Amino acid sequence: MRILLDISYIGTRFCGWQSQINGLSVQQVLEEALKKSTGQFMRITGASRTDAGVHARCQRAHFDYAGPVPPDRFPFLLNPCLPPDVRVTGSREVPESLHARFQAAGKAYTYRIVCCPHPNALDLPFAWHLPYALEYDRMREAAALLEGTHDFRAFAASGFQSKTTVKTIYSSRITASDEHLQIRINGSGFLYNMVRIIAGTLVYIGEGRLEPDCISAALASGDRLVLGPTAPPHGLELTRVMYAPEWGEWAREDGGWTWKIS
Amino acid sequence: MRILLDISYIGTRFCGWQSQINGLSVQQVLEEALKKSTGQFMRITGASRTDAGVHARCQRAHFDYAGPVPPDRFPFLLNPCLPPDVRVTGSREVPESLHARFQAAGKAYTYRIVCCPHPNALDLPFAWHLPYALEYDRMREAAALLEGTHDFRAFAASGFQSKTTVKTIYSSRITASDEHLQIRINGSGFLYNMVRIIAGTLVYIGEGRLEPDCISAALASGDRLVLGPTAPPHGLELTRVMYAPEWGEWAREDGGWTWKIS
Repeated sequence: MRILLDISYIGTRFCGWQSQINGLSVQQVLEEALKKSTGQFMRITGASRTDAGVHARCQRAHFDYAGPVPPDRFPFLLNPCLPPDVRVTGSREVPESLHARFQAAGKAYTYRIVCCPHPNALDLPFAWHLPYALEYDRMREAAALLEGTHDFRAFAASGFQSKTTVKTIYSSRITASDEHLQIRINGSGFLYNMVRIIAGTLVYIGEGRLEPDCISAALASGDRLVLGPTAPPHGLELTRVMYAPEWGEWAREDGGWTWKIS
Repeated sequence: MRILLDISYIGTRFCGWQSQINGLSVQQVLEEALKKSTGQFMRITGASRTDAGVHARCQRAHFDYAGPVPPDRFPFLLNPCLPPDVRVTGSREVPESLHARFQAAGKAYTYRIVCCPHPNALDLPFAWHLPYALEYDRMREAAALLEGTHDFRAFAASGFQSKTTVKTIYSSRITASDEHLQIRINGSGFLYNMVRIIAGTLVYIGEGRLEPDCISAALASGDRLVLGPTAPPHGLELTRVMYAPEWGEWAREDGGWTWKIS
């Protein structure tokens, strides 16, 4: 039976989602909690291989399980075996053909920035701090240029593995309240470091160091060098991973997503 | 010259604001940062002696300084000497007659609760987790009964030191969005553990274990035993400390506060 988990984590002390030789990964603490609570080792496959320091509000991951635990009970089983900065918020049985990464139909990311000379301690672990104001309207104009289906190869760090660099961005929005800015991006898929390169570029545009139309130029030329820097990881949150209705997931009227009982 | 600091902190790893024999206090790390950056030891007096685990968005504290640092420069001086979970967000010269605690004209607190079976890791350090829903309307009705000038002795933990138990609550509101609830209380002053006793009582009312009119009964009788438990500290945030215009502070049109240049 294939189980899909909803997982949230504060990425600060982890080397990222994926297990590595050096450093503690979120995948590793989850696999250890599964082993401890069920007695079985099961490999967990995540939807998104988030980088070191990146947070997740709703990462998703699958594993194959044969045992007596009802499929919706894994939060009760796993949370007592997990550190407080990793929490399983939901679980359910999904078709065995659903692969958490390859069948993900969309992902939503939020990048947070705080623009003021001396930021609040409560904001600091979850936002990129810039000690000056940004021009939000220039950033809004640039963010809108990302929407649609484009070849995003200019927005990928070197060393990425992806069959195609053509992706669809469903929405790319800036929301701001005083010194707090959020970049909210929802798309079919993302290349390695793509959201952090977008955030770094939008900041350079907000600072006046780049023009909004550098986005169009990069989409046309594929040239990474016309864009801004890769923004730091701690401002980034994987907000949501979505699957298409054929895998059992349905959009609710309130904007959330739910699973059809099969 | 008397300096007033604006200070934010994540309270998780501290024994509270005030220096104690066992445990690291926020006051201690600030005094050490002042000593390191100026070469002088100066005693810092906080407006609110927040408990172990309580967070602060804007605590305030004064100290007396004689030296070359301009009064608005202390954030630049102190932040590089402070851990990331304590940040100084502002500083200015105030009259020597202003005592951060005794002249505080008002304080605003926010108590956060998350009501769902499996809470998000990102919420957990800053909210009290309850694994079931609360009746928000009953809590709103009860919260409103706190507003006004009353004898709040029923809402104080034993061992408090306060000249009077008569305080004025300017506003006491519940805001909620799905499973996230915030209790926002603004008042002239607060007794020891008062906001946490209010939060614990409002939760008992939201669970149906107590009736909203227990608030009125406690205000009339002064009996702590008709109220609910003391809520845990990590849901509590000291949001703001305010001083009256005669000490130089003025409300701004945008709802913030600023200092009149004297």
